[in-house]
Amino acid sequence: MEIKFTPISNVGEFGLIEKFSSTALRFSNPNVIQTIGDDAAILKTTADKLTVVTTDILIQGVHFDMSYTSMRHLGRKAAVANLSDIAAMSALPTAAFVSLGIHSNLSVEMIEEFYDALADELGKYQCVIAGGDTSASPVGFVVSITIVGEVEPDRRVLRSGAKGGDVVCVTGDLGRSHAGLKILQREKNRYVEAGQPADFSPNFDGYDDALQKHLLPEARVTLSRNLSEKIRLHSMIDVSDGLVSDMMHICKASGVAAELDEEFIPIDPITRKIGDEFKEDPLRYALYGGEDYELVFTISEEDFSKLYSLEGNVRAIGRVKAGDPKVSIKRADGKVEVYNDFPSYQHFKRQSRL
Amino acid sequence: MEIKFTPISNVGEFGLIEKFSSTALRFSNPNVIQTIGDDAAILKTTADKLTVVTTDILIQGVHFDMSYTSMRHLGRKAAVANLSDIAAMSALPTAAFVSLGIHSNLSVEMIEEFYDALADELGKYQCVIAGGDTSASPVGFVVSITIVGEVEPDRRVLRSGAKGGDVVCVTGDLGRSHAGLKILQREKNRYVEAGQPADFSPNFDGYDDALQKHLLPEARVTLSRNLSEKIRLHSMIDVSDGLVSDMMHICKASGVAAELDEEFIPIDPITRKIGDEFKEDPLRYALYGGEDYELVFTISEEDFSKLYSLEGNVRAIGRVKAGDPKVSIKRADGKVEVYNDFPSYQHFKRQSRL
Repeated sequence: MEIKFTPISNVGEFGLIEKFSSTALRFSNPNVIQTIGDDAAILKTTADKLTVVTTDILIQGVHFDMSYTSMRHLGRKAAVANLSDIAAMSALPTAAFVSLGIHSNLSVEMIEEFYDALADELGKYQCVIAGGDTSASPVGFVVSITIVGEVEPDRRVLRSGAKGGDVVCVTGDLGRSHAGLKILQREKNRYVEAGQPADFSPNFDGYDDALQKHLLPEARVTLSRNLSEKIRLHSMIDVSDGLVSDMMHICKASGVAAELDEEFIPIDPITRKIGDEFKEDPLRYALYGGEDYELVFTISEEDFSKLYSLEGNVRAIGRVKAGDPKVSIKRADGKVEVYNDFPSYQHFKRQSRL
Repeated sequence: MEIKFTPISNVGEFGLIEKFSSTALRFSNPNVIQTIGDDAAILKTTADKLTVVTTDILIQGVHFDMSYTSMRHLGRKAAVANLSDIAAMSALPTAAFVSLGIHSNLSVEMIEEFYDALADELGKYQCVIAGGDTSASPVGFVVSITIVGEVEPDRRVLRSGAKGGDVVCVTGDLGRSHAGLKILQREKNRYVEAGQPADFSPNFDGYDDALQKHLLPEARVTLSRNLSEKIRLHSMIDVSDGLVSDMMHICKASGVAAELDEEFIPIDPITRKIGDEFKEDPLRYALYGGEDYELVFTISEEDFSKLYSLEGNVRAIGRVKAGDPKVSIKRADGKVEVYNDFPSYQHFKRQSRL
């Protein structure tokens, strides 16, 4: 297969915008009444619904490494990171606004691949790219996405509604995205140490489920809507920074403590296998790894039985207690780890515990 | 005066977010019901109004030069660039979402100065910073802003509504921002050529009006609302890329031609003076300079007389004609310049005519 590399300067800014417009126009949403092509987009809000807005910025060298992230994976992950925030409010996305800073070492084809994957992922939920901005970037690729969505007033879920006695639940499994990243990093290091040979073949056999979770995660938009249709969710957040950090956000916003139990924290067999290979505790991947894009939420004990009638993989992992904000984890050996503050990665500080 | 320089790593990402939150909370808007501090913001839309969304990305070294842009000026201009797009729809802004990529050579104080100026400028129109994202940036300062606003369905103005026979009008004067930039660039060059001496004093005497327009422009939000209250605006755009380019957007979107007259294009005396000093035609600054953040709009001839009853400086500069999209300028000497496409700066292409 021949790979085409058309320099961006061949098409210019307006040429790129035309390509973006035709990609964006593949999708539609009845609430988007003016899309790309004016000073601003115009959206209608369904009567009696609230508007929800979230935004994220991704910068090359900080959030992603182009040596093992394809433009297609990047486009998809950029969409998922934002959709996951919309899911955490139990909202539905309507329109996305995509601003790109583009370095001249990227080709038109690469940018189109990114944009197509982004539009496709958003389009799964009838979310339309309705605007954006495009700039040269003196260095690296910069992606800033804002999603506007809507939610019924009685179905919105904040971080601040957790109550003593609530059951803490989590969707899917945790730590698998970080386990996948470990494999990608290991193979990149092998490639670099071997002198970057042309015939290098990374060893990804048997790691599909972990790589898939890291490179092509899914946002829990549909599951979140199913949950809020049947159950009053007291509080919710998406797991993007690791379970401890995200649970801590709920605890701080709600003024409560959370007591979680290692035994119930869902960790996939492939995550355990990778932890073993690296002689690391796979629970650490779940607690601090991030990028799982699952949801953590709290509900009353009475509502817990209703979960069984729902499609989708949801598990109870602990309890909310009245008291000062903290997260404690009861380990399998009976010891209790207590966190009074955020343990995981912060930009500008590099104290990641992994 | 002692200038403090606190490294960002002293406060970390969450420290910065706390500072941003307290700045943002100085302002409120009744339609912003959940602000910074959750996965997304929640906004209410006034019954029967439409939601308007615009977004812009600014990248150091592309959109601004830190050697003559203070953080306060940059914060203000970042707000104005977006507010100006809201004004071009005749909408009112409600909430802003601000994502920053921050290089480690910036101090906490510099970022706060930027953010304060941004919040103050938005706050003039009751526009609240309701969310955002903060990241390290390996290179330069990156600012991505999205503003959400609202407009009555019968007062929204698109680029596509210009009709043959319309009068073309412009607010304020044009080209002055570019004239101010010429002075800033000249003084920067003098400073560099002199070997960057500590006692260098730039010569800005008598150029205040031009520097003010470049460094501290105003968005025409209030004037735009006054106009749409009294007059049916057929089409409108803000002048951010220069008159020819922005008028061309209206012509292409509406499928019409515009015939403008140099004699009526408002150019301030200081703009003419600076043009003379550089031996350049000041009309070029108006046609291709950009960053004036004035508004160009078209109205029916019958409505033209209503303009006199309005506060604010508005002038008629030409006519809309049926026909293929083009912009013609009748020069003072009777010659006519015709543009069939965008003449001004495009990212990735460097064909600016200045």
